[in-house]
Amino acid sequence: MPVGTIEVRERAMSRSNKLAHDVRRRLEDGRTIAFNIISAPGAGKTLLLERTLQALNSEISVAVVTGDSYTQHDAHRLARYTGRLVQAVIAHDGCHLDASQIEQALHAIDLDYTDLLLIENVGNLVCPMAWDLGETAKVVLYSVTEGDDKPVKYPNVFRRADYAIFTKVDLLPHLEFDLGRAVGHARDLNPNLGIFYTSARTGEGMDEWFDFLRHRVNEVHIPLP
Amino acid sequence: MPVGTIEVRERAMSRSNKLAHDVRRRLEDGRTIAFNIISAPGAGKTLLLERTLQALNSEISVAVVTGDSYTQHDAHRLARYTGRLVQAVIAHDGCHLDASQIEQALHAIDLDYTDLLLIENVGNLVCPMAWDLGETAKVVLYSVTEGDDKPVKYPNVFRRADYAIFTKVDLLPHLEFDLGRAVGHARDLNPNLGIFYTSARTGEGMDEWFDFLRHRVNEVHIPLP
Repeated sequence: MPVGTIEVRERAMSRSNKLAHDVRRRLEDGRTIAFNIISAPGAGKTLLLERTLQALNSEISVAVVTGDSYTQHDAHRLARYTGRLVQAVIAHDGCHLDASQIEQALHAIDLDYTDLLLIENVGNLVCPMAWDLGETAKVVLYSVTEGDDKPVKYPNVFRRADYAIFTKVDLLPHLEFDLGRAVGHARDLNPNLGIFYTSARTGEGMDEWFDFLRHRVNEVHIPLP
Repeated sequence: MPVGTIEVRERAMSRSNKLAHDVRRRLEDGRTIAFNIISAPGAGKTLLLERTLQALNSEISVAVVTGDSYTQHDAHRLARYTGRLVQAVIAHDGCHLDASQIEQALHAIDLDYTDLLLIENVGNLVCPMAWDLGETAKVVLYSVTEGDDKPVKYPNVFRRADYAIFTKVDLLPHLEFDLGRAVGHARDLNPNLGIFYTSARTGEGMDEWFDFLRHRVNEVHIPLP
Protein backbone atom coordinates (compact mmCIF):
# COMPACT_ATOMS: atom_id res chain seq x y z
CA MET A 1 0.00 0.00 0.00
CA PRO A 2 1.58 3.33 -0.99
CA VAL A 3 2.23 5.80 1.82
CA GLY A 4 -0.26 8.24 0.32
CA THR A 5 -3.16 5.86 0.96
CA ILE A 6 -2.24 5.58 4.62
CA GLU A 7 -2.00 9.36 5.01
CA VAL A 8 -5.38 9.95 3.40
CA ARG A 9 -6.90 7.14 5.46
CA GLU A 10 -5.52 8.70 8.65
CA ARG A 11 -7.00 12.07 7.74
CA ALA A 12 -10.36 10.43 7.02
CA MET A 13 -10.17 8.53 10.31
CA SER A 14 -9.21 11.62 12.28
CA ARG A 15 -12.19 13.49 10.80
CA SER A 16 -14.46 10.54 11.58
CA ASN A 17 -13.16 10.38 15.17
CA LYS A 18 -14.07 14.04 15.71
CA LEU A 19 -17.57 13.37 14.40
CA ALA A 20 -17.80 10.23 16.57
CA HIS A 21 -17.13 12.43 19.58
CA ASP A 22 -20.06 14.69 18.58
CA VAL A 23 -22.32 11.70 17.93
CA ARG A 24 -21.46 10.22 21.34
CA ARG A 25 -22.32 13.50 23.09
CA ARG A 26 -25.62 13.74 21.25
CA LEU A 27 -26.48 10.14 22.19
CA GLU A 28 -25.67 10.88 25.83
CA ASP A 29 -27.78 14.07 25.75
CA GLY A 30 -30.66 12.08 24.29
CA ARG A 31 -30.08 9.22 26.77
CA THR A 32 -29.87 6.87 23.83
CA ILE A 33 -27.92 3.61 23.99
CA ALA A 34 -26.26 2.77 20.65
CA PHE A 35 -24.82 -0.58 19.62
CA ASN A 36 -22.51 -0.96 16.63
CA ILE A 37 -23.17 -4.46 15.31
CA ILE A 38 -20.30 -6.02 13.37
CA SER A 39 -19.76 -9.41 11.75
CA ALA A 40 -18.61 -11.31 8.70
CA PRO A 41 -21.20 -11.54 5.90
CA GLY A 42 -23.83 -14.14 6.68
CA ALA A 43 -23.37 -14.32 10.45
CA GLY A 44 -26.96 -13.23 10.99
CA LYS A 45 -26.94 -9.49 11.74
CA THR A 46 -30.16 -8.74 9.87
CA LEU A 47 -32.06 -11.69 11.33
CA LEU A 48 -30.93 -10.75 14.86
CA LEU A 49 -32.20 -7.21 14.25
CA GLU A 50 -35.51 -8.48 12.84
CA ARG A 51 -36.09 -10.65 15.94
CA THR A 52 -34.99 -7.82 18.25
CA LEU A 53 -37.40 -5.36 16.67
CA GLN A 54 -40.23 -7.91 16.83
CA ALA A 55 -39.55 -8.54 20.55
CA LEU A 56 -38.88 -5.00 21.78
CA ASN A 57 -40.57 -2.54 19.42
CA SER A 58 -43.74 -2.29 21.54
CA GLU A 59 -41.90 -1.50 24.81
CA ILE A 60 -38.71 0.31 23.76
CA SER A 61 -38.31 3.04 21.17
CA VAL A 62 -35.77 1.54 18.78
CA ALA A 63 -34.22 3.21 15.72
CA VAL A 64 -32.01 1.41 13.20
CA VAL A 65 -29.22 2.50 10.87
CA THR A 66 -28.18 -0.11 8.34
CA GLY A 67 -25.21 -0.03 5.98
CA ASP A 68 -25.07 -2.15 2.87
CA SER A 69 -22.37 -2.08 0.20
CA TYR A 70 -24.44 -2.60 -2.90
CA THR A 71 -28.14 -2.89 -2.27
CA GLN A 72 -31.03 -1.94 -0.04
CA HIS A 73 -31.78 -5.59 0.63
CA ASP A 74 -31.29 -5.45 4.43
CA ALA A 75 -33.14 -2.15 4.68
CA HIS A 76 -36.15 -3.71 2.94
CA ARG A 77 -36.05 -6.69 5.29
CA LEU A 78 -35.91 -4.47 8.38
CA ALA A 79 -38.46 -1.93 7.15
CA ARG A 80 -41.14 -4.59 7.64
CA TYR A 81 -40.60 -4.31 11.41
CA THR A 82 -40.00 -0.61 11.99
CA GLY A 83 -40.76 2.79 10.56
CA ARG A 84 -37.66 4.19 12.25
CA LEU A 85 -34.97 2.97 9.90
CA VAL A 86 -32.27 4.90 8.04
CA GLN A 87 -30.26 3.37 5.23
CA ALA A 88 -26.69 4.66 5.34
CA VAL A 89 -25.16 5.28 1.94
CA ILE A 90 -21.97 3.25 1.55
CA ALA A 91 -19.58 4.17 -1.24
CA HIS A 92 -19.14 1.38 -3.77
CA ASP A 93 -16.80 -1.27 -2.33
CA GLY A 94 -16.81 0.56 1.04
CA CYS A 95 -16.16 -1.94 3.81
CA HIS A 96 -17.39 -0.10 6.93
CA LEU A 97 -19.59 2.68 8.24
CA ASP A 98 -17.94 5.86 9.51
CA ALA A 99 -19.14 8.49 11.96
CA SER A 100 -20.15 10.96 9.24
CA GLN A 101 -22.76 8.47 8.03
CA ILE A 102 -24.15 8.15 11.57
CA GLU A 103 -24.13 11.93 11.96
CA GLN A 104 -26.07 12.16 8.66
CA ALA A 105 -28.50 9.46 9.79
CA LEU A 106 -29.17 11.37 13.03
CA HIS A 107 -30.74 14.18 10.97
CA ALA A 108 -33.64 11.74 10.47
CA ILE A 109 -33.75 10.32 14.01
CA ASP A 110 -35.03 12.29 17.01
CA LEU A 111 -32.85 11.04 19.83
CA ASP A 112 -35.19 12.48 22.47
CA TYR A 113 -37.65 9.80 21.39
CA THR A 114 -35.08 7.02 20.93
CA ASP A 115 -34.06 4.65 23.73
CA LEU A 116 -31.98 2.33 21.62
CA LEU A 117 -30.11 2.85 18.34
CA LEU A 118 -29.04 -0.33 16.57
CA ILE A 119 -26.39 0.17 13.89
CA GLU A 120 -25.96 -2.70 11.44
CA ASN A 121 -22.45 -2.25 10.05
CA VAL A 122 -21.26 -3.53 6.65
CA GLY A 123 -20.66 -7.31 6.52
CA ASN A 124 -16.93 -7.35 7.22
CA LEU A 125 -14.88 -8.62 10.14
CA VAL A 126 -11.83 -6.37 9.77
CA CYS A 127 -12.37 -2.75 8.69
CA PRO A 128 -15.38 -1.82 10.87
CA MET A 129 -13.50 -2.50 14.12
CA ALA A 130 -11.13 0.43 13.56
CA TRP A 131 -13.84 3.06 13.07
CA ASP A 132 -15.49 4.65 16.08
CA LEU A 133 -19.08 5.61 15.25
CA GLY A 134 -19.77 7.22 18.61
CA GLU A 135 -21.53 4.02 19.74
CA THR A 136 -22.05 3.03 23.37
CA ALA A 137 -20.58 -0.41 22.66
CA LYS A 138 -19.37 -2.65 19.86
CA VAL A 139 -21.12 -6.01 19.44
CA VAL A 140 -19.53 -8.68 17.28
CA LEU A 141 -21.63 -11.53 15.89
CA TYR A 142 -19.80 -14.82 15.59
CA SER A 143 -21.56 -17.65 13.79
CA VAL A 144 -20.55 -21.06 15.12
CA THR A 145 -20.42 -22.23 11.48
CA GLU A 146 -17.32 -20.06 10.96
CA GLY A 147 -14.99 -22.33 12.95
CA ASP A 148 -13.66 -22.14 16.51
CA ASP A 149 -10.36 -20.54 15.45
CA LYS A 150 -11.91 -17.12 14.60
CA PRO A 151 -10.61 -15.34 17.77
CA VAL A 152 -7.08 -16.56 16.97
CA LYS A 153 -7.33 -15.31 13.39
CA TYR A 154 -9.02 -11.99 14.18
CA PRO A 155 -7.66 -11.04 17.62
CA ASN A 156 -8.34 -7.31 17.19
CA VAL A 157 -12.03 -8.01 16.68
CA PHE A 158 -12.31 -9.73 20.05
CA ARG A 159 -10.02 -7.26 21.83
CA ARG A 160 -12.04 -4.26 20.69
CA ALA A 161 -15.55 -5.69 21.02
CA ASP A 162 -17.55 -5.14 24.21
CA TYR A 163 -19.94 -8.01 23.53
CA ALA A 164 -19.85 -11.15 21.40
CA ILE A 165 -23.02 -12.89 20.29
CA PHE A 166 -22.51 -16.48 19.19
CA THR A 167 -25.17 -17.10 16.52
CA LYS A 168 -26.70 -20.25 14.97
CA VAL A 169 -25.95 -22.31 18.10
CA ASP A 170 -28.79 -24.68 17.07
CA LEU A 171 -26.29 -26.06 14.52
CA LEU A 172 -23.68 -27.01 17.16
CA PRO A 173 -24.70 -30.71 17.22
CA HIS A 174 -23.91 -30.87 13.48
CA LEU A 175 -20.55 -29.08 13.60
CA GLU A 176 -17.03 -29.85 14.78
CA PHE A 177 -17.02 -26.63 16.77
CA ASP A 178 -15.52 -26.62 20.27
CA LEU A 179 -17.50 -23.86 22.02
CA GLY A 180 -15.30 -24.01 25.13
CA ARG A 181 -12.21 -23.55 22.98
CA ALA A 182 -13.71 -20.59 21.08
CA VAL A 183 -14.85 -18.89 24.29
CA GLY A 184 -11.47 -19.57 25.93
CA HIS A 185 -9.63 -17.91 23.03
CA ALA A 186 -12.00 -14.93 23.12
CA ARG A 187 -11.69 -14.48 26.90
CA ASP A 188 -7.89 -14.76 26.72
CA LEU A 189 -7.96 -11.78 24.36
CA ASN A 190 -10.59 -9.86 26.30
CA PRO A 191 -11.50 -10.98 29.83
CA ASN A 192 -14.29 -8.36 30.01
CA LEU A 193 -16.09 -9.54 26.88
CA GLY A 194 -19.81 -10.07 27.50
CA ILE A 195 -20.97 -13.21 25.71
CA PHE A 196 -24.38 -14.37 24.47
CA TYR A 197 -25.24 -17.74 22.93
CA THR A 198 -28.14 -17.48 20.51
CA SER A 199 -30.13 -19.04 17.74
CA ALA A 200 -32.48 -16.57 16.07
CA ARG A 201 -34.15 -19.53 14.34
CA THR A 202 -35.03 -21.60 17.43
CA GLY A 203 -35.11 -18.61 19.81
CA GLU A 204 -32.48 -20.19 22.10
CA GLY A 205 -30.67 -17.55 24.14
CA MET A 206 -32.59 -14.67 22.57
CA ASP A 207 -34.37 -13.75 25.81
CA GLU A 208 -31.00 -13.12 27.50
CA TRP A 209 -30.14 -10.69 24.68
CA PHE A 210 -33.53 -8.95 24.90
CA ASP A 211 -33.28 -8.72 28.71
CA PHE A 212 -29.80 -7.27 28.39
CA LEU A 213 -31.08 -4.56 26.02
CA ARG A 214 -34.01 -3.77 28.35
CA HIS A 215 -31.59 -3.56 31.26
CA ARG A 216 -29.16 -1.27 29.43
CA VAL A 217 -31.95 1.04 28.32
CA ASN A 218 -33.52 1.19 31.79
CA GLU A 219 -30.17 1.91 33.44
CA VAL A 220 -29.87 5.05 31.36
CA HIS A 221 -33.38 6.16 32.19
CA ILE A 222 -33.07 5.92 35.98
CA PRO A 223 -34.06 9.43 37.09
CA LEU A 224 -31.16 11.50 38.39
CA PRO A 225 -31.32 12.14 42.18
CA MET B 1 -14.73 9.08 1.38
CA PRO B 2 -12.58 12.06 0.38
CA VAL B 3 -11.62 12.28 -3.28
CA GLY B 4 -7.93 11.88 -2.39
CA THR B 5 -8.52 8.35 -1.17
CA ILE B 6 -10.14 7.36 -4.43
CA GLU B 7 -7.29 8.85 -6.48
CA VAL B 8 -4.62 7.08 -4.47
CA ARG B 9 -6.60 3.84 -4.62
CA GLU B 10 -6.87 4.15 -8.39
CA ARG B 11 -3.13 4.66 -8.71
CA ALA B 12 -2.50 1.61 -6.50
CA MET B 13 -4.97 -0.40 -8.56
CA SER B 14 -3.46 0.72 -11.84
CA ARG B 15 0.01 -0.33 -10.60
CA SER B 16 -1.40 -3.65 -9.41
CA ASN B 17 -3.10 -4.23 -12.77
CA LYS B 18 0.20 -3.79 -14.60
CA LEU B 19 1.85 -6.31 -12.27
CA ALA B 20 -1.13 -8.66 -12.73
CA HIS B 21 -0.46 -8.57 -16.47
CA ASP B 22 3.17 -9.65 -15.82
CA VAL B 23 2.09 -12.36 -13.39
CA ARG B 24 -0.42 -13.72 -15.91
CA ARG B 25 2.26 -13.90 -18.63
CA ARG B 26 4.64 -15.70 -16.27
CA LEU B 27 1.94 -18.19 -15.32
CA GLU B 28 1.20 -18.83 -19.00
CA ASP B 29 4.91 -19.27 -19.77
CA GLY B 30 5.17 -21.75 -16.90
CA ARG B 31 1.93 -23.47 -17.97
CA THR B 32 0.63 -22.94 -14.47
CA ILE B 33 -3.08 -22.68 -13.68
CA ALA B 34 -3.78 -20.21 -10.86
CA PHE B 35 -7.01 -19.90 -8.89
CA ASN B 36 -7.77 -16.87 -6.74
CA ILE B 37 -9.95 -18.20 -3.91
CA ILE B 38 -12.22 -15.63 -2.29
CA SER B 39 -14.85 -15.81 0.45
CA ALA B 40 -16.23 -14.30 3.61
CA PRO B 41 -14.36 -15.26 6.79
CA GLY B 42 -15.27 -18.75 7.91
CA ALA B 43 -16.63 -20.09 4.61
CA GLY B 44 -13.99 -22.82 4.59
CA LYS B 45 -11.14 -21.68 2.31
CA THR B 46 -8.37 -23.19 4.43
CA LEU B 47 -10.15 -26.52 4.92
CA LEU B 48 -10.87 -26.77 1.18
CA LEU B 49 -7.17 -26.15 0.49
CA GLU B 50 -6.11 -28.73 3.10
CA ARG B 51 -8.35 -31.38 1.52
CA THR B 52 -7.22 -30.40 -1.99
CA LEU B 53 -3.54 -30.71 -1.09
CA GLN B 54 -4.18 -34.07 0.61
CA ALA B 55 -5.97 -35.37 -2.49
CA LEU B 56 -3.77 -33.99 -5.27
CA ASN B 57 -0.28 -33.39 -3.86
CA SER B 58 1.04 -36.77 -4.99
CA GLU B 59 -0.10 -36.38 -8.61
CA ILE B 60 -0.04 -32.63 -9.32
CA SER B 61 2.62 -30.11 -8.35
CA VAL B 62 0.66 -27.59 -6.30
CA ALA B 63 1.99 -24.35 -4.76
CA VAL B 64 0.00 -22.18 -2.37
CA VAL B 65 0.01 -18.47 -1.54
CA THR B 66 -2.02 -17.56 1.51
CA GLY B 67 -2.92 -14.09 2.76
CA ASP B 68 -3.92 -13.46 6.34
CA SER B 69 -4.59 -10.08 7.92
CA TYR B 70 -3.14 -10.61 11.36
CA THR B 71 -1.61 -14.02 11.88
CA GLN B 72 0.12 -16.96 10.27
CA HIS B 73 -2.63 -19.27 11.46
CA ASP B 74 -3.73 -20.47 8.00
CA ALA B 75 -0.13 -20.81 6.83
CA HIS B 76 0.60 -23.10 9.78
CA ARG B 77 -2.47 -25.20 9.01
CA LEU B 78 -1.52 -25.56 5.34
CA ALA B 79 2.21 -26.11 5.95
CA ARG B 80 1.32 -29.54 7.35
CA TYR B 81 0.30 -30.61 3.84
CA THR B 82 2.85 -28.94 1.57
CA GLY B 83 6.38 -27.61 1.55
CA ARG B 84 5.47 -25.26 -1.30
CA LEU B 85 3.66 -22.54 0.57
CA VAL B 86 4.27 -18.80 0.64
CA GLN B 87 2.67 -16.54 3.23
CA ALA B 88 1.81 -13.18 1.66
CA VAL B 89 2.37 -10.23 3.95
CA ILE B 90 -0.84 -8.26 4.33
CA ALA B 91 -0.64 -4.76 5.72
CA HIS B 92 -2.49 -4.36 9.01
CA ASP B 93 -6.24 -4.10 8.31
CA GLY B 94 -5.60 -4.89 4.63
CA CYS B 95 -8.68 -6.52 3.15
CA HIS B 96 -7.33 -8.16 -0.03
CA LEU B 97 -4.22 -9.44 -1.80
CA ASP B 98 -2.84 -7.42 -4.69
CA ALA B 99 -0.69 -8.44 -7.66
CA SER B 100 2.54 -7.09 -6.11
CA GLN B 101 2.19 -9.66 -3.33
CA ILE B 102 1.77 -12.46 -5.87
CA GLU B 103 4.72 -11.15 -7.85
CA GLN B 104 6.78 -11.22 -4.62
CA ALA B 105 5.57 -14.72 -3.81
CA LEU B 106 6.65 -15.93 -7.26
CA HIS B 107 10.28 -15.22 -6.27
CA ALA B 108 9.95 -18.30 -4.05
CA ILE B 109 7.95 -20.47 -6.47
CA ASP B 110 9.47 -22.05 -9.57
CA LEU B 111 6.60 -21.99 -12.04
CA ASP B 112 8.33 -24.48 -14.36
CA TYR B 113 7.71 -27.04 -11.64
CA THR B 114 4.22 -25.85 -10.69
CA ASP B 115 1.06 -27.15 -12.35
CA LEU B 116 -1.39 -25.45 -10.04
CA LEU B 117 -1.12 -22.30 -7.92
CA LEU B 118 -3.83 -21.90 -5.28
CA ILE B 119 -4.14 -18.39 -3.86
CA GLU B 120 -6.08 -18.09 -0.61
CA ASN B 121 -7.20 -14.47 -0.50
CA VAL B 122 -8.01 -12.53 2.68
CA GLY B 123 -11.35 -13.45 4.28
CA ASN B 124 -13.51 -10.75 2.75
CA LEU B 125 -16.36 -10.83 0.27
CA VAL B 126 -16.05 -7.33 -1.19
CA CYS B 127 -12.55 -5.88 -1.67
CA PRO B 128 -10.75 -8.91 -3.20
CA MET B 129 -13.14 -9.06 -6.19
CA ALA B 130 -11.86 -5.75 -7.60
CA TRP B 131 -8.17 -6.72 -7.61
CA ASP B 132 -6.77 -8.75 -10.50
CA LEU B 133 -3.90 -10.94 -9.25
CA GLY B 134 -3.07 -12.33 -12.68
CA GLU B 135 -5.02 -15.49 -11.83
CA THR B 136 -6.49 -17.87 -14.40
CA ALA B 137 -9.86 -17.71 -12.68
CA LYS B 138 -11.62 -16.39 -9.60
CA VAL B 139 -13.32 -18.92 -7.34
CA VAL B 140 -15.79 -17.74 -4.70
CA LEU B 141 -16.65 -19.96 -1.75
CA TYR B 142 -20.21 -19.61 -0.52
CA SER B 143 -21.13 -21.36 2.71
CA VAL B 144 -24.77 -22.44 2.78
CA THR B 145 -24.87 -21.22 6.40
CA GLU B 146 -24.60 -17.62 5.11
CA GLY B 147 -28.16 -17.49 3.79
CA ASP B 148 -29.59 -17.88 0.28
CA ASP B 149 -29.75 -14.12 -0.33
CA LYS B 150 -25.97 -13.67 -0.69
CA PRO B 151 -26.00 -13.30 -4.52
CA VAL B 152 -28.63 -10.54 -4.21
CA LYS B 153 -26.58 -8.70 -1.58
CA TYR B 154 -23.19 -9.14 -3.28
CA PRO B 155 -24.00 -9.15 -7.01
CA ASN B 156 -20.49 -8.08 -8.08
CA VAL B 157 -19.01 -11.13 -6.41
CA PHE B 158 -21.12 -13.47 -8.49
CA ARG B 159 -20.76 -11.42 -11.67
CA ARG B 160 -16.97 -11.41 -11.49
CA ALA B 161 -16.38 -14.97 -10.25
CA ASP B 162 -15.69 -17.76 -12.74
CA TYR B 163 -16.60 -20.52 -10.30
CA ALA B 164 -18.66 -20.75 -7.13
CA ILE B 165 -18.14 -23.53 -4.61
CA PHE B 166 -21.04 -24.03 -2.23
CA THR B 167 -19.47 -25.27 1.02
CA LYS B 168 -20.85 -27.06 4.12
CA VAL B 169 -23.71 -28.62 2.11
CA ASP B 170 -23.87 -31.39 4.76
CA LEU B 171 -25.66 -28.78 6.92
CA LEU B 172 -28.48 -28.19 4.38
CA PRO B 173 -30.97 -30.48 6.20
CA HIS B 174 -30.56 -28.29 9.30
CA LEU B 175 -30.90 -24.91 7.56
CA GLU B 176 -33.65 -22.85 5.98
CA PHE B 177 -31.55 -22.46 2.85
CA ASP B 178 -33.20 -22.77 -0.56
CA LEU B 179 -30.37 -24.06 -2.76
CA GLY B 180 -32.43 -23.68 -5.95
CA ARG B 181 -33.13 -20.07 -5.07
CA ALA B 182 -29.47 -19.30 -4.33
CA VAL B 183 -28.30 -20.97 -7.56
CA GLY B 184 -31.03 -19.20 -9.53
CA HIS B 185 -29.92 -15.80 -8.23
CA ALA B 186 -26.29 -16.60 -8.98
CA ARG B 187 -27.04 -17.83 -12.51
CA ASP B 188 -29.20 -14.76 -13.21
CA LEU B 189 -26.16 -12.63 -12.47
CA ASN B 190 -23.70 -14.86 -14.29
CA PRO B 191 -25.03 -17.58 -16.62
CA ASN B 192 -21.47 -18.89 -17.20
CA LEU B 193 -20.72 -19.44 -13.52
CA GLY B 194 -19.34 -22.96 -12.88
CA ILE B 195 -20.85 -24.34 -9.67
CA PHE B 196 -19.67 -27.02 -7.23
CA TYR B 197 -21.59 -28.36 -4.23
CA THR B 198 -19.23 -29.57 -1.50
CA SER B 199 -18.75 -30.59 2.08
CA ALA B 200 -15.10 -30.82 3.04
CA ARG B 201 -16.19 -32.56 6.23
CA THR B 202 -18.19 -35.42 4.68
CA GLY B 203 -16.32 -35.37 1.36
CA GLU B 204 -19.56 -34.84 -0.59
CA GLY B 205 -18.87 -33.24 -3.97
CA MET B 206 -15.13 -32.98 -3.37
CA ASP B 207 -14.26 -35.49 -6.11
CA GLU B 208 -15.94 -33.23 -8.70
CA TRP B 209 -13.72 -30.36 -7.54
CA PHE B 210 -10.58 -32.51 -7.62
CA ASP B 211 -11.47 -33.89 -11.08
CA PHE B 212 -12.06 -30.37 -12.32
CA LEU B 213 -8.57 -29.32 -11.11
CA ARG B 214 -6.98 -32.42 -12.72
CA HIS B 215 -8.82 -31.62 -15.94
CA ARG B 216 -7.78 -27.95 -15.98
CA VAL B 217 -4.14 -28.84 -15.29
CA ASN B 218 -4.08 -31.57 -17.95
CA GLU B 219 -5.68 -29.28 -20.54
CA VAL B 220 -2.74 -26.93 -20.18
CA HIS B 221 -0.22 -29.72 -20.50
CA ILE B 222 -1.57 -31.20 -23.73
CA PRO B 223 1.49 -31.12 -26.03
CA LEU B 224 1.23 -28.51 -28.77
CA PRO B 225 0.79 -30.05 -32.26
